[in-house]
Amino acid sequence: MKADISKDDATPTLDDVARKAGVSTATVSRCLNNPDRVVEATRARVMEAVKALEYTPNFAARVMAAKRTFTIGAIIPTMDNAIFARGLQAFQEALHARGYTLLVSSSAYRPDVEEEQIRALVARGADGLLLIGHDRDAPIYEYLERQKVPALAAWSFMEDGQIPSIGFDNRAAMSALAKEVIRLGHRRIAMISGISQGNDRARERIEGLKDALRESALDVDDLEIIETTYEVENGAEAFTQLMSRDVPPTAVLCGNDVLAVGASLGAKRLGLRVPQDVSITGFDDIELARITSPALTTVHVPHREMGRKAADALIDMVEGKKKVVSAKLETSIKKRHSLGPCPGTNDDPDHP
Amino acid sequence: MKADISKDDATPTLDDVARKAGVSTATVSRCLNNPDRVVEATRARVMEAVKALEYTPNFAARVMAAKRTFTIGAIIPTMDNAIFARGLQAFQEALHARGYTLLVSSSAYRPDVEEEQIRALVARGADGLLLIGHDRDAPIYEYLERQKVPALAAWSFMEDGQIPSIGFDNRAAMSALAKEVIRLGHRRIAMISGISQGNDRARERIEGLKDALRESALDVDDLEIIETTYEVENGAEAFTQLMSRDVPPTAVLCGNDVLAVGASLGAKRLGLRVPQDVSITGFDDIELARITSPALTTVHVPHREMGRKAADALIDMVEGKKKVVSAKLETSIKKRHSLGPCPGTNDDPDHP
Repeated sequence: MKADISKDDATPTLDDVARKAGVSTATVSRCLNNPDRVVEATRARVMEAVKALEYTPNFAARVMAAKRTFTIGAIIPTMDNAIFARGLQAFQEALHARGYTLLVSSSAYRPDVEEEQIRALVARGADGLLLIGHDRDAPIYEYLERQKVPALAAWSFMEDGQIPSIGFDNRAAMSALAKEVIRLGHRRIAMISGISQGNDRARERIEGLKDALRESALDVDDLEIIETTYEVENGAEAFTQLMSRDVPPTAVLCGNDVLAVGASLGAKRLGLRVPQDVSITGFDDIELARITSPALTTVHVPHREMGRKAADALIDMVEGKKKVVSAKLETSIKKRHSLGPCPGTNDDPDHP
Repeated sequence: MKADISKDDATPTLDDVARKAGVSTATVSRCLNNPDRVVEATRARVMEAVKALEYTPNFAARVMAAKRTFTIGAIIPTMDNAIFARGLQAFQEALHARGYTLLVSSSAYRPDVEEEQIRALVARGADGLLLIGHDRDAPIYEYLERQKVPALAAWSFMEDGQIPSIGFDNRAAMSALAKEVIRLGHRRIAMISGISQGNDRARERIEGLKDALRESALDVDDLEIIETTYEVENGAEAFTQLMSRDVPPTAVLCGNDVLAVGASLGAKRLGLRVPQDVSITGFDDIELARITSPALTTVHVPHREMGRKAADALIDMVEGKKKVVSAKLETSIKKRHSLGPCPGTNDDPDHP
């Protein structure tokens, strides 16, 4: 049936479904394309006929009838380490509740692969796309606009981005965490960041740390930042490098929890206690942060809320129901055990 | 262009691409559909024209011309906890190398959702499908056969399954691990398993443990198994339940690493040391197993090899190149620190 554009006698048609369900073809079409406009009993009868006849709503026919396929695409940078898993799960559940199926692609943080996947999902008839962050070339946005496929960015927030966003303020969130680190007496601070090129979340988090340093009149030029891909082993390696300096940092802020788990592993290998000898912080508050030992002090991101709201916003865009307004969600600092007072100082502000 | 079945003057056609690239329309078609049959320089010129004109190969037209879309679908039970991430990443890389794009769907371990996603991916024109395990109703396989969409199962191996598999022997792997547990003196053994209904991997792992008990003349009826969904907190809760028995187990074998991490967390909360007071084992050897403390003794699954081989096998099926033969990959026991000798016995076989 996949290749069935021309008529094939063996293939059930919309007419067959209508006859079996005892309704008009228009009703069948509505059931497939605007199920919310059909009473539940009718919809159930039609869907039963669809299933009994094994009617696969022909892509072309459905697109012609409804200009909709009830498929949403999401392109995430990676499926590894479950960085996006929780948010995506909530996104999918909310889509499902509104009758949409989610197809996911992972770009391995490569812009060329992301572009290819955007085109593939559009060609496969995706009604709308969820993208992560705002860093991409203008032609891609122009392409989506010409194809009339609405897109929404998540995991970062931009007031006047090319597409609306349901995200959070990566910069302010990292700044708040860094201020807490500084409050605990740390002055020699270093950062292990994700690759900032093409990744607005990583860049904003670096800027947030710099903001906090400046506010405390600390020298931003003294800040050492190692950029590496988000893998546990890379975090461990970067940490080892940082600790080999003549004057090693007393606190290492990491661009996400995966790098922080790696840094903790690096500390263990060097025989350093966290946080007594060195403090480590994460970002994202994925499950890893809670499981690792010591559990990570990190930025809590409202993954499920973000996924749910992104689904509702994107479907509203697809269905043209209302103007979608970007939303900036709240983050918070999740205090666990990997951040402590600066070693060698006798002034733990929490236990004076 | 998405809805462009009828001719639209603004939309670039195959002819436009052919003219711009200076080749015949047949060559353009071949470039899009059988790129390996076109010399690289020609292919590059055509793809440049495709890009310059923003020609989106029309789904219907391409299907009619080639009966192929260069899209592969994968339906995995969950994106959480990165259980399938590493294998899927390798699968995608191997697909990409052969010119195919991967679209992923996650069924939340629900057969009805999986069926819906299979139909959605077929309707979106997937050339082939990767499925996890073999547990599904016969009509789904018949549907795939009628639609002529090849499918391959991974993560489990079945000699004469309805579809070929690139997997491993879950039963033998768990049996080997359980034998090691028994060798270390454990007699009171319990298991925390995933939900076995509809999950052949979970069922086979339970059977593997039973095989090992029988081989050592231990009573299978004494074995307590708690089934729960693969979440860290559920593992912790099940572990707490097991330890509240009058005669608690000395070793808890878990259906996967996620449950084992949960069990370790449960042990920590109860003030029990792992493995001095109680041993815990995992299955899968995902990154979590290495990171958690103590690091998990677990079954190592060759995730990347499986993903790579599954991609090659599935594309061979799609392209009808050769008969695909199922492959059973080797697993091994990864010894780390969560399994030790049975407490209270003075006979550590490794340190007599």
